[in-house]
Parts: sequence; C-alpha cells; structure tokens
Amino acid sequence: MTRIDRLRERLEEPLLVTNLVNVRYLCGFDSSNAALLIEPDRVRLFTDFRYIEEARAVPDVEAVQTKRALIAELAETLVGRVGFETVLPYAQYEALAGGGLELVPRSGIVEAMRAVKDETELQLLRRACKITDRAFERLLDVHFIGRRERDVAWDLVQIFHDEGAESVWPEFIVGSGPTGSHPHGRAGDRKIGVGELVVVDAGCTIGGYTSDYTRTFSTGPLDERLREAYEVVETAQDGALGGIRAGLTGVEADALARAIIDESDFRGTMGHGLGHGLGLDVHEDPRLSTESTDVLVAGNVVTVEPGVYVSGEFGIRIEDDVVVTENGIENLTHLRKDLVEVG
Amino acid sequence: MTRIDRLRERLEEPLLVTNLVNVRYLCGFDSSNAALLIEPDRVRLFTDFRYIEEARAVPDVEAVQTKRALIAELAETLVGRVGFETVLPYAQYEALAGGGLELVPRSGIVEAMRAVKDETELQLLRRACKITDRAFERLLDVHFIGRRERDVAWDLVQIFHDEGAESVWPEFIVGSGPTGSHPHGRAGDRKIGVGELVVVDAGCTIGGYTSDYTRTFSTGPLDERLREAYEVVETAQDGALGGIRAGLTGVEADALARAIIDESDFRGTMGHGLGHGLGLDVHEDPRLSTESTDVLVAGNVVTVEPGVYVSGEFGIRIEDDVVVTENGIENLTHLRKDLVEVG
Repeated sequence: MTRIDRLRERLEEPLLVTNLVNVRYLCGFDSSNAALLIEPDRVRLFTDFRYIEEARAVPDVEAVQTKRALIAELAETLVGRVGFETVLPYAQYEALAGGGLELVPRSGIVEAMRAVKDETELQLLRRACKITDRAFERLLDVHFIGRRERDVAWDLVQIFHDEGAESVWPEFIVGSGPTGSHPHGRAGDRKIGVGELVVVDAGCTIGGYTSDYTRTFSTGPLDERLREAYEVVETAQDGALGGIRAGLTGVEADALARAIIDESDFRGTMGHGLGHGLGLDVHEDPRLSTESTDVLVAGNVVTVEPGVYVSGEFGIRIEDDVVVTENGIENLTHLRKDLVEVG
Repeated sequence: MTRIDRLRERLEEPLLVTNLVNVRYLCGFDSSNAALLIEPDRVRLFTDFRYIEEARAVPDVEAVQTKRALIAELAETLVGRVGFETVLPYAQYEALAGGGLELVPRSGIVEAMRAVKDETELQLLRRACKITDRAFERLLDVHFIGRRERDVAWDLVQIFHDEGAESVWPEFIVGSGPTGSHPHGRAGDRKIGVGELVVVDAGCTIGGYTSDYTRTFSTGPLDERLREAYEVVETAQDGALGGIRAGLTGVEADALARAIIDESDFRGTMGHGLGHGLGLDVHEDPRLSTESTDVLVAGNVVTVEPGVYVSGEFGIRIEDDVVVTENGIENLTHLRKDLVEVG
C-alpha cells in the first residue's frame, strides 16, 4: 500500500498538499514549487517549467505544468470541495479562496503519517546516523584550542563529506564557553580556550533524512561545578533513554530528564524540550516537551537531548537519535557519553 | 533614520512582523522563532528562551520572552488593531484571530523596503560577489571530465570556504549534458563527459547577503548547434545588461533578453524569468519575468540570467548580479562571458 493510498484512508475530502516536504514524502518529488491534489481516483502533481521533466517521471501521478504562480493558477482552474494544509501562507489561502474552491482547513494529516517511520525511512536514518557516528568520532582528533569555533565547524563539514554524507546542515553549532549557553548559538569567531566546555551540534542527510547529534567536549581540566553539571546532563539523558517507550506522552518523556535536572543544583536550566521528531525535517512530530500534545508510538524517531545552560558561563547538551519501540527504544547513536577531552 | 523608522512611515496601524528574514532586516536579530511588533512609540521583539539573550542585546527594542509556541502566546496577550504579514501560515493566522486582536492583512511592506538596498547592504553584496568572482575563476582549474557533478560541486564549496565565504548555499547546481536542461537540476552522480556543456550555479553569503552566479562551461569541442546556442544566450544577456535601468517594468526587462532568444533558432526555450531580486533571500523582489508586476527602481539588486534549455540534451545559462541605477546598471560580477573550456 503506497503512502498516497494510506493518506486517502485518512481523508474526508480531496486534499491539496502544498507543504513541499509532504509532497516529497508522498510521491518522492523534490522541488521548490509544487502541489499535489489527492482525489479518490486521481493524483495530480502541479509544478512549473523548471521541474516538469522530473514531475513526468514520478510514477502513479499525472504531472501538470503550471506557471510559476502555481497557487494563483490552481485558484483559477480547480473547483469543488478540497481540504488544504494550514501551513499554507495566508496570502495563498486568500488567493485560493477567491477561486471556485470550497476550502476545508486540515492540519497535520501528512505530518502524522510522517511521524511514524516505515522500514525504508528507518534504513535511511540508520545510514545518516552511522555516518554521524564516524564524523563525531573523528572530531576527537580535530584541534580545538586556540582556533575559532567556525574553523572547527568547517573541519566537521569536511569530515562529514569525506564519510559520504549527501549533504550537511547549512550551519553547525560549535559553542565554546559562554557561547554554549545559547542553545542555538552558532559557530562564530570566538577562539576556543583551555578548560572550557564546547557544545557541538551537527547532522547530515541521506536520501533527505537527517541525523541530529550533540556532544559536549572539554578542552582541559574543568571546574568541579562544570563536571557536576555534565554528570547531571548525562544522568538525565540516561534516565530519558531508559524510560522512553510507546504510550508515553511527549510531556511524560520530557519529564524523565527534566525531573533529574530539576532535582540537581541546576534546577530550571533546561530551557528547551527534551527532543523532537526527526526525518525529512530536522524538527518534526512528535515533540517531547512541556508544551507537547503528542503521544509516542512505535516507529517514531526522536532526538533525546537534555541540556543545562548557565547564562554567560557555559552550556551542556548530549543528544542521541532513537527509534521508539513498544517496550523502549532502539538507539541509532553509537557514541560514548562520558566527558571527553579534546586538544 | 533607522529601518524601523522608515517602516513606521508606511504603516496605517501597528505591524506584527513574523517573517524571520524581515525581523532580521529590521533589527538585525537572526533566529528561528521571533516576531517584532512595531507600534508608534514602542518596538517589542518576541522570542523564546533559546534566543532571549541575543534578543536583549538588540538596540532600541524591548525583548520579551515567550514560550516556543510564540504565536499562541501573542494571541493570548495582545489586543487592538494590528497588521499582520500575509506570509503567515493560515494556522497561525487562525490562532491569532482567535485572540483579542483585530487583524489587518498586509503584504509586502517590508519586502518592498528590502528590494531597495542601502549602502550597508550594497557593501555586503559587493563583498559576496568579489568572493564569488574569485571562486568561479578558480573553478577553471578544477578537473571536470570523468568526475561526478557532485564532486565538482564539493570542490567549489571548498574553494568558496577558502576564499572567505561566511556560508554557501545548501546545494550548488552542477548540471552536465542533459542534466543541464533542468534549470534547477542538482549536482548528482552523473559523470561529466567530453564535449558537453556544464551549467554551474552557485553563491555564498556575507553578513547574510547572498550572491548568485551562473556560468556554463564546455568540456571540449562542441557541436555547432551548442556553440550557436551559447552565443544566443550571451547576446541575450548583453542585451539585457545594456537595457536594464530604473523605470523599466519587470516584464520589459525580461523581454530584453527573451526577444533575442525568441528571434533565434531557440525560440521558446527560455523557460524561466530573466532574474530576481537578491539580498537576505536568494529570491526576493523585484521579479524580472513575464509574470512580474514590479517596476525597477535605483537600488534594486537583481540577477540577470537568460538561458536556453533543450530537454534531454543540454542547458545554458549565464548569470550576473547587478545594481539597478537611474541610467543603467552597476555590474557586481566581474567574470568573462565567452565559452570557456574546462578539463
């Protein structure tokens, strides 16, 4: 049963899929301008001149060439009752609503399918993780001290390429000392000092599917407080990895790690959620956080990434990628967790 | 006068800026989750924990920390009549509309400001173009024949890094032979042969501002028809570069090149517009195409990139980045245009 067939079972009316990642997921077509109209007995793939040749090669869909203003053209030509994805920009919604369609807002239908990975997807994620394992292992041989964060990040890009990554994220995080206390701080011009913590957050894609790892290294002997903080994060991650399984809510999963941090001297310093789904997007469903409304099911692939952040001083994060199973997890990340010193 | 002051002059009511590139343009704050509320005597910058430290360092704005579900929180807390940017996803519009705000759809206000570059922006674009000039010059020494498109693309990434690019596009286009006939074909596994045309489309950023160049190379002697096609594209680009100036419509600018191609044996093969604005986004206003509704003004920075595409056979594109002036253009691209053979 194809993904489109499975989607059809979830639909009450035809669905106009405009999220380009969802289009790719459903029919394998990857472009910057496309829409897929799923009807009971027909699937049309709309795209413009630039991609029409590739569209014609997609099996089981009718490729239809439109002008660049794709939504405007659909507004003029389509009629009937159609669901639309509510990630659609308001302006495009307005254009569609001005045509002959009766629009029904639908949210998260394809995203819910994407949250549960099939074997093809798991294989791609395993391959991306294997490459990321090797890249992070090789990072231990990279020179950190006295170099700029961005230089270390570039070394890691080269290592990923060398290990066969199809592509890497546009930007890796290398946050040393106080930079690390910004959970999304970038690799900047700061020179990495001795006796600091360095957060490295990076990933690569295989077949469009992305890995997402973080390790925190030391550059020489650390203050007792930093070592203690590292242990807290490591324990929190262990707790989460040991407790996550299908049936838990995203809030419960998050609490597995957060409770441990909040019982330590670093109470209240885990300023983000425990993790997020991983697939064709770096951040997708389900969410593991205090705000989550998700329930974990077998086949979810999520990050498990507790952290401690002390403003202006340091940050620590340890992140693995795992498959949720009925009774626990399959960890796709095979890297040591202890505090490793880099030079 | 700051950008925010200039924006205020264009507003009929307070504006909630949710487009993250617009937020960056207006106050320099670069994140994955933020909104800016511009009121007559007050500017608030909303973001979550991850970025709040950086937000507090932004001059002349009040930084306000929200939960990750930023729009949901704004819906709960804001009241009054407020304009919103219609690039907002429909779901977020619905959330906002469910709160205490009276919403007015506004489109393209900040985008129109961004389309006219100030001196700071022009300097960043000039720097990005200078690096891109050198990168494309060095590409002539790269080995093409017998290697995969993706290997040439990776060499170019390394050259850009070496030349001081802050970042490069996530993916460069290297389209050899028939791959080149897809205007947005990627650098794939195809091995580049002898006597082919190879389209290389790439760019880098400095301070967030991006360059966007294309050159088409030959790998040895070409059929007469390919040489003729190259000359047509070169002539079309010359025509466009010679004719573009403030006051022309986007349709008229496009026609400068299209007319030349359509008078040749390659009539109807320029399947995309002549160009697009360039700045913090790779594709922004104004548009130079048959569908454009824009009029060029001094200070626009646009690509000029006519092309000829013969399905399954070859593609040719030549692309420069230029500043529109009252009487013509300032070309930021300093590269030769003739057909160059690579080895």
